[in-house]
Amino acid sequence: MATPQRVHLFTADTLPTSKLDASTLGSKGANLVEMTRLALPVPPGFILTTHACKAYYHEAHTLSEELRTEVLEALNALQKHTGRVLGDPVNPLLLSVRSGAPVTMPGMMDTVLNLGLNDATVRALADQAGNERFAWDCYRRFIQMYADVVIGMRADVLEQFHERIKQRENVFEDSNLEAEHLKELVELYKNTILQRAGIAFPDDPMEQLWGAIGGVFASWNNKRANEYRQLYSISADLGTAVTVQTMVFGNLGATSGTGVALTRDPSTGERRLYGEYLLNAQGEDVVAGMQIPHAISEADRVEGDPPSLETALPIVHGQLKDIVQQLESHFGDLQDIEFTIENEKLWMLQTRKGKRTAQAALRIAVEMVEESRITREEALLRIDPQQLDQLLLPRFSPESLDEARRAGRVIARGLPASPGAQVGPVVFDPATAMEYAARGNPAVMVRVETSPDDIQGMRKSAAVVTMRGGMTSHAAVVARGMGRCCVVGCRDFDVRLDEEEIHIPGHVIRKGDLLSIDGTTGEVILGRVDRMDPDLGPHFSTLMEWVDDVAKLDIRANAHTAREARLALNFGAQGIGLCRTEHMFFDPERATAVREMILASGEEERRHALKDIVRMQTGDFKAIFEVMGGLPVTMRLLDPPLHVFLPHNAAELEAVALRANVDVNTLQDRADRLREVNPMLGHRGCRLGISYPEIYEAQVQAIVNAACEVHREKGLDITPEILLPLVSAPRELELLCLIINTTAQQTMDAQGVQLDIRIGTMIELPSAVLEAGKLAKHVDFFTFGTNDLTQTVLGISRDDASRFLPLYVDMGILDDDPFVSLDPAVRHFVASGVERGRATRPDLTVGLCGVHADNPETVRFCAEAGFDFVSCSPWLVPVCRLAAAHAALEGEDE
Amino acid sequence: MATPQRVHLFTADTLPTSKLDASTLGSKGANLVEMTRLALPVPPGFILTTHACKAYYHEAHTLSEELRTEVLEALNALQKHTGRVLGDPVNPLLLSVRSGAPVTMPGMMDTVLNLGLNDATVRALADQAGNERFAWDCYRRFIQMYADVVIGMRADVLEQFHERIKQRENVFEDSNLEAEHLKELVELYKNTILQRAGIAFPDDPMEQLWGAIGGVFASWNNKRANEYRQLYSISADLGTAVTVQTMVFGNLGATSGTGVALTRDPSTGERRLYGEYLLNAQGEDVVAGMQIPHAISEADRVEGDPPSLETALPIVHGQLKDIVQQLESHFGDLQDIEFTIENEKLWMLQTRKGKRTAQAALRIAVEMVEESRITREEALLRIDPQQLDQLLLPRFSPESLDEARRAGRVIARGLPASPGAQVGPVVFDPATAMEYAARGNPAVMVRVETSPDDIQGMRKSAAVVTMRGGMTSHAAVVARGMGRCCVVGCRDFDVRLDEEEIHIPGHVIRKGDLLSIDGTTGEVILGRVDRMDPDLGPHFSTLMEWVDDVAKLDIRANAHTAREARLALNFGAQGIGLCRTEHMFFDPERATAVREMILASGEEERRHALKDIVRMQTGDFKAIFEVMGGLPVTMRLLDPPLHVFLPHNAAELEAVALRANVDVNTLQDRADRLREVNPMLGHRGCRLGISYPEIYEAQVQAIVNAACEVHREKGLDITPEILLPLVSAPRELELLCLIINTTAQQTMDAQGVQLDIRIGTMIELPSAVLEAGKLAKHVDFFTFGTNDLTQTVLGISRDDASRFLPLYVDMGILDDDPFVSLDPAVRHFVASGVERGRATRPDLTVGLCGVHADNPETVRFCAEAGFDFVSCSPWLVPVCRLAAAHAALEGEDE
Repeated sequence: MATPQRVHLFTADTLPTSKLDASTLGSKGANLVEMTRLALPVPPGFILTTHACKAYYHEAHTLSEELRTEVLEALNALQKHTGRVLGDPVNPLLLSVRSGAPVTMPGMMDTVLNLGLNDATVRALADQAGNERFAWDCYRRFIQMYADVVIGMRADVLEQFHERIKQRENVFEDSNLEAEHLKELVELYKNTILQRAGIAFPDDPMEQLWGAIGGVFASWNNKRANEYRQLYSISADLGTAVTVQTMVFGNLGATSGTGVALTRDPSTGERRLYGEYLLNAQGEDVVAGMQIPHAISEADRVEGDPPSLETALPIVHGQLKDIVQQLESHFGDLQDIEFTIENEKLWMLQTRKGKRTAQAALRIAVEMVEESRITREEALLRIDPQQLDQLLLPRFSPESLDEARRAGRVIARGLPASPGAQVGPVVFDPATAMEYAARGNPAVMVRVETSPDDIQGMRKSAAVVTMRGGMTSHAAVVARGMGRCCVVGCRDFDVRLDEEEIHIPGHVIRKGDLLSIDGTTGEVILGRVDRMDPDLGPHFSTLMEWVDDVAKLDIRANAHTAREARLALNFGAQGIGLCRTEHMFFDPERATAVREMILASGEEERRHALKDIVRMQTGDFKAIFEVMGGLPVTMRLLDPPLHVFLPHNAAELEAVALRANVDVNTLQDRADRLREVNPMLGHRGCRLGISYPEIYEAQVQAIVNAACEVHREKGLDITPEILLPLVSAPRELELLCLIINTTAQQTMDAQGVQLDIRIGTMIELPSAVLEAGKLAKHVDFFTFGTNDLTQTVLGISRDDASRFLPLYVDMGILDDDPFVSLDPAVRHFVASGVERGRATRPDLTVGLCGVHADNPETVRFCAEAGFDFVSCSPWLVPVCRLAAAHAALEGEDE
Repeated sequence: MATPQRVHLFTADTLPTSKLDASTLGSKGANLVEMTRLALPVPPGFILTTHACKAYYHEAHTLSEELRTEVLEALNALQKHTGRVLGDPVNPLLLSVRSGAPVTMPGMMDTVLNLGLNDATVRALADQAGNERFAWDCYRRFIQMYADVVIGMRADVLEQFHERIKQRENVFEDSNLEAEHLKELVELYKNTILQRAGIAFPDDPMEQLWGAIGGVFASWNNKRANEYRQLYSISADLGTAVTVQTMVFGNLGATSGTGVALTRDPSTGERRLYGEYLLNAQGEDVVAGMQIPHAISEADRVEGDPPSLETALPIVHGQLKDIVQQLESHFGDLQDIEFTIENEKLWMLQTRKGKRTAQAALRIAVEMVEESRITREEALLRIDPQQLDQLLLPRFSPESLDEARRAGRVIARGLPASPGAQVGPVVFDPATAMEYAARGNPAVMVRVETSPDDIQGMRKSAAVVTMRGGMTSHAAVVARGMGRCCVVGCRDFDVRLDEEEIHIPGHVIRKGDLLSIDGTTGEVILGRVDRMDPDLGPHFSTLMEWVDDVAKLDIRANAHTAREARLALNFGAQGIGLCRTEHMFFDPERATAVREMILASGEEERRHALKDIVRMQTGDFKAIFEVMGGLPVTMRLLDPPLHVFLPHNAAELEAVALRANVDVNTLQDRADRLREVNPMLGHRGCRLGISYPEIYEAQVQAIVNAACEVHREKGLDITPEILLPLVSAPRELELLCLIINTTAQQTMDAQGVQLDIRIGTMIELPSAVLEAGKLAKHVDFFTFGTNDLTQTVLGISRDDASRFLPLYVDMGILDDDPFVSLDPAVRHFVASGVERGRATRPDLTVGLCGVHADNPETVRFCAEAGFDFVSCSPWLVPVCRLAAAHAALEGEDE
C-alpha cells in the first residue's frame, strides 16, 4: 500500500487538493493554503502533514527516508519557484519552520526562523539587504532559536550573553547593538553550544532543516503543550503539522515591520481594523511582548505614542484593510491575522479565527446576523456559554472607583487585556496563586511577563497583571481565552520577583497586599474598590431572545433571598430551583431563636423557639414568592447538620441561655454533643425531619402561610414546591410526605385558601439512585444534588479535597475537578436515577442543583438526559440559558 | 365456596387429619394432636386454626357466626367425651384457652386458665376436689387472667389486692391464704372490674369462652409479640391458633404438681432427663418464675432443697422418663415438655423443640449423629451459626476468678441461665442499657424479673441478672435464645429499681458500678475479672471437621498481629483476609517514628523516618507469615487519614520534634493542617500512596523483605497479597501497581529470592463498583470493604449514626442496623461489583472484609454471590465456617 503524500507544496502556481484540511495540514497550514488560493501575498512554502508527525512518533523520533525524499522534492520545487537555493552563498533561500496543529495552540509549540544562515549565507544576506547589522541579527536569532528548539538548551543560557553585551555597551534596545557586537555574539553562541551541549552548531542548511523539523515535531509533546491540551481538552493524538516557508523580513529597516491585525475590535466587537505593529521587527517581537507595539489605526493611537501604520505606511495600511475584509468575508468570522512588511511589501503570514472577549463575541455575533452574514442559530453557537460568564461578572461601582481615583490609589494603568473587576491579594508565582485559591481567596498574580508555565496559576487567580507585553502577548491571549481579568504592560511597575515586591514611585507593594484590577480600563488600584452588578447592553437582550426561542431545558436559579430572586429574574431565570430555607437562619437577628431551637432539650422547648422562626420565615418566603410572581419556587427543608448553627462564642451562648432560660453550662454540653466526626454523612437532611418532625412542620407552615398570604394579597397563583434533602429510602418519603401534607392542609384550612402543593426529593445518595423507582411513587419531582452525590460516589469530601485533587487531575486519575465538571461515574448515577424514576412515574419533573449546574457542560448533559430544569447561580442564568440553546441546536443536528 | 373447617377436635377417639400442620394448628396445637395420636395422656380439647385468627382480623375483631357454630359443635363433642358440661353446677367442664402460633413465641401471647368458673361452678369444683381453698384459688386466678387478657386491665391493678391481703394476714406464700381470703379477693376483683372497666365480670361461661378466644386472637398483635416477631424476623401475617383444652389441675394438693422437662440438659447437652417442677402449682407458677422450682431428677437436687420428683412421686417420674424418651425419638430432637400431675395422674400439656446453649446444641448434634438419629448434614444445619458465637466467647481466667473469690468479691450466686463471662457497669432498666450500648460500653442489666418489654434492652446488654426466676423463666429462655450471658434467681439481691440500687448484706451496688457475670457458674462478682480465650471441647472439633467437608467459601480472618493470626489459625481460618499494616503504627514504641513520618515537611524527611518503620514492619510481617505457614495473607497498605497518628499531647509532640530535629511550633502547624472536616472522605487510602509514594514503597519493601526472609529461613512458599484501599478509579491502580511491582522486584532482587506477588483492590466506593470491570484488569483480587461502602451508599457516617439509626430501625426506614446487617442497596452494589469484575476477569478472586463479615447472613450472601472468601474477626471464624457450610448445604437443596 502506497503511503499517502506527506509533504504538500503551496505556491502561487501549485496548491494541494482542497480536500486537505486542518486535520492534515494544521490550522495554520490550511489557512496559508487558503490565502494562497485567494491570491493573497503569502510567502511560498511546503507543509509536512500531521501524519508525518505521527510517523515521527511511531518511528522512535526519526524522519523516515520516504519523508526526507518528499521534503527534498518540495524543497527543489520551492527553490525553482523562488529562484533561491538553500545554502547558496550568493542567493540563499532562508526558511521559517513553524508548528501548526489542527487546533490552534498559540505559542505552545516551537518555531525556528531564518533557517539556512551560516557563516557564508549571512554575508549574502547582508549584501542583498545592504544591511550587515540586519543579517547578523538574523543569524544571532536563528542560532538562539535553534539552540532552544533543536539542541534543547535553556533560552536564558544564550540570552545572558546578549544581555551582558548590551550592558557592556551601555545599550537598552536590542536594535542599538552594532553588527560587530552581533558577530561577537554569534561566536559566543556557537562556542557555548559546543561546550555545553558537546555538539557543533551545524553549518549545513540541510542538517539545520532536518533538525528544525524534528524539533518542531518534538515540541508537540513538550510540557506546556501537554498542559495546554489538558486545559482545553485537546487530544494528544492529533499531532502537529510543520510549515516550512520562505522567510520574509520585517526587520530590514524603517519601511519594514511586522504586526497583528483583527477585523473587529476583540475587546468591544466594534467593526474596524484593529491591531498592533512594530517597525523593523520580526514577528516574535510582537507576540512575545518584549517590546510595546504601536497601533495600526490612527484612531487607536494614544497621544505621545509613535505613529500608527495608517500614518507611517498609508499604502500598506490600505492594502491590509482590504485584505482583512476579504478574509473576514471568506471565513465568515472575526480573523486574527499576522503580517510582515518587507521594504513596503505586505506579506500575509497567518490568519485564524480571532479570540475575543465575551462582550465582543456577543456584539460580533449579533451584528453579523444583522449584516446577514450568519443565521441566528449560527450566532448562538458562536458564543461559548462559558465565555458569556465574563459579561456577567460584576464591575466596579463608579462611586467607589471615583473615590479611589481621587484618593490617588490608582497606582498604574496598563493595557486592558481582558475585562473584569477583581479584588485580591498580590502573589508573584503560580504556585502561591494556587495556594490562595485553595484557601478560597483567589489572588492577583503579578508577573514580569507570563509564559505557558503560568497557565495553571492564571486559571486559579482572580486577575493577572504583567509588567511587559501588549494586547496580543501571551498573558493577554491566554487570559482572554480563560475569561480571566487581565491587565498587561504596566510599564511603571518594577516587579522584583525574588523579593516578592513591586516598586513604583512612592509605593512598595508586598505579597498579600490587596489590589483592585479593572480589566476594562487597565487600572491597577491599591486597596479594595466596591463592585456592582454588570450593565448588559442591547446585544445581550437580542441574543437572549433568540436563546429562548430555541432552548428546551428550563434554567432556574438557586436563590435564598428576595434580592437574589430578583437578580435571577432579571437574568431570565424560569423559577427558583433551590431555596435553602436554612439560609435565613444565619441572619444575626434570627440566630438566637434558631440556636434556641437547635439546643432545645426536647420537643416542647423546640416548639417554643420554632414559633418565632415560623413568623420570620413566613415573611422571608412571602418576599420571594412576590418577586417570582407565580413562577415555580422550590423550598428545601432544613438540610445541614445542626451544629453549623451553634453559637460561636460565650456572648452568643449567653444570649441563647437568657432567651431559653437554660443554664449556660447545660447549653454548652448540648452544643458539644452536636459535634460530629463526619458531619457530611451525619445527622442532617431529612434525618432531622424524621427525628424532629416539629422543625419540618414549622417550615412547611411558614411556606404555606406565605403562599396563601401572597395569593390573597396579590392574587398570585402559587404552587409551593417543597423539597426533602438527603433522602435514602422510600419509607422516609412516606413518613415525611404525611407530615407535609397534613401540616400544609391544616395551614391552608386556617388561611381559608386552597393551593396545590408539590413535594419533591433530592437524589443525592447512591442508595436513592438505586431506589429511585420507588421514591418516584411518593413525589412530584426529583432534584439531583450533585455536590453530595459526587462526595458519596467518589468518597471525596469537598471540604478536604484540595489536599489531593490538583495532584489527581495532574496525574490523569480524574479528568477534571469533579466539583466543577460532573465525574463520569456521577453522570452514570444521575442518568440511571432519571431512568428509574421515570420508569415508575413518566410525568416526574426532574431537575439538578449543585455547583455543577453552573457549568454549561452539565446543562448539555441534563438536556440530553431529559431533564426539565437545571438550577444554577443567579448570575450564571444567561450562561446556562445559552448552553441550553446550544444543547437544543446540537440535539436537532443529530 | 365452602369455608374450610376452622375448629378441630382432638380426643383419644377423634383426631384431625394428619395433613394439618403447625401453620394451621399452631405449633403447640399440632404437637398436642401428635401426642394424642401417640396415645400419650393429653387433656382433650379443640383447636381454632390460624385461618380463624386471620378471619378475626379480617372481620374487624369479631368472631363470625360460622366460627361460633363450629366452636359450639366441638364443645358439644368435648362435653360428650369428658362427660362434663360447661357451666354445669354439678359437673362443670373447665377449660384452658391458650395461644399457639406456627412458630414458638414463648410467653409473648396470652393464656386464660380455669375458664368456666363462676359463683356456681366454683362450689362444684370445691366439692369434686374436696378442697374449697383450691377451687377459690382457681377462681381468683381465672378472674385475674381474664381481666388482663379480655378486659385489658393492667395485671398489677388486681394483683395489689392480693398482695395487700397477704400483708394483712401476714402471709408470705400464696398457698398460705385461706379459702375465706380468696373469696374476699374474688369479690374485690369483681367490684374493681365493674368500677374501673365499667363492665360486670361475666358469669356466663359461654360469654367467658368467646371473650377468651377473642382476647387470645388479639394478643397476636400486642406490643411484645410484635417486638418478638421483629427481633426474630417472624411474619406478622402468620396469625395464631387457639387451643381450648380440658383443664387439669396441678394445684390439687401434695400429689399434684406441674413442671417442665427436657430430654437432655439444655446447658451442657448431656443426655438425661432434666427439668424442674413444683408441687401443688399451676403451670404459670413455674414459667413466670414467681417461685423457685425444684429439680425433677435427684442428681440435680442441691443439698437442702426440697425433694426431687424422682423421690416425691417415683411412679410418675418413671412414666415421665419413658414418655420424654418416646417424644425425642419421635420428633428427632431435644424436646422441651410441659406436664401437669393431677392427683398422681400425669398429663402432657405441651412438647416443643427445646432451646439450648451453643455448647448443648453442639453436643446434642454430634451425639445424635453418633446415636444414628440424624445425619451429619442435619447436625450441621441444627446449629445456628449465630449461636455458636456463645461458645467462642472468652471466659474468666481461673487465676483472676480465684483471686476474686478469695477477696470475697463473689457477692451472689444465681442460676447459670446462659453461659458467657461479661464485665460491665450496672444499669436497672432497658432504656439505660441501650444508652450505654450506644456509647460502646454495654451494661449488666439487673432486674427483679424480666418481661417482654425488656427484650430490646437485653439484646443490647453485655449480661442480664435477675433476682427471681428459674432456668425456664422468661429471662433465662430469652437470654439463651440471644446468646446473652445471663444469671437468674439471685435470691440474695434486694433490687430497688426506684433507687437504682442493689442491697446485699454488707454492700450497696449503685448504677454504673462494675460487675463481672459468669453465666456458666452463676456467680456475680464485684469489680472486674480478667477474661481469657475459651476452651473448646471435642464436639467442637468433630463438627468443624464436618464443616470443612461441606463448605465451599473460604473463611479468612482479619488479623493484625502474630497473636491474632495464631488465634485465627486455631479457629480454622483459611488465611488472613485483612492485615491493616497501620495497626502496628499505634504501638507506643513505634509512634514517634510514625509521627515523624506523618509530620515530615517533604519526601526527604519522610524517607528518613520511613527507614526505621520499614525495619520494624519487616519484623511484624515476618512473625505473621511464620504463623500462617504459607496460607494466604493479605496486607493492606496504609489507609486511615494521617491525623489519626498525630501526637496527643505536648510531650509526644516534643519527642517527635527531638527525633526529627524540627521546631515544635512548626510541627504543631503541620499537625493542625492535617485535620479534616470529613476525614472519612478525605486524604486517606490509596490517595496517600499517590501523594506520598515513598510511604507505600516502604510498606511494600517491608512486606516483601519479610516474605523473602521467611522463605529463606523457614522454606515457606509465600505469595504476599498486597491490598490497596479506597480505590475509586482505574488509573490509581495503574500508577500504584507500577510502584508496587517495581519496589517488590527491587526488594526481591536485593534478597536474591523470587516470589509471586498478588495485588488487589478494595471495592468500597460506589465509583469503584461502577468501574469494577476496568479495575479488575489491573489486579488479581477484589476485597469488598462493606463498612465504607455502607457509609457512602447510604450517606451515613458510622461514627455519628447512633444519633438516628435506632429511630430509623424503629420506624421501619431501615430493616436493621446497616453496620450489622448488609443493607439491600449495599448488597446490590456488592453483587454488581462482583459481576462487573468477573466479566472482564473471570478468574478474579473475590473476598469481603468489614464488620458485616462477622454476620452469618453476610456469609450466606457471599456464598450465593460467588465469593471466594470472607474475612471476619478471628474468634468468629468458626461461626462463619459453619455459616459457609449451611450456605453450601442449602445451595445443594435448591
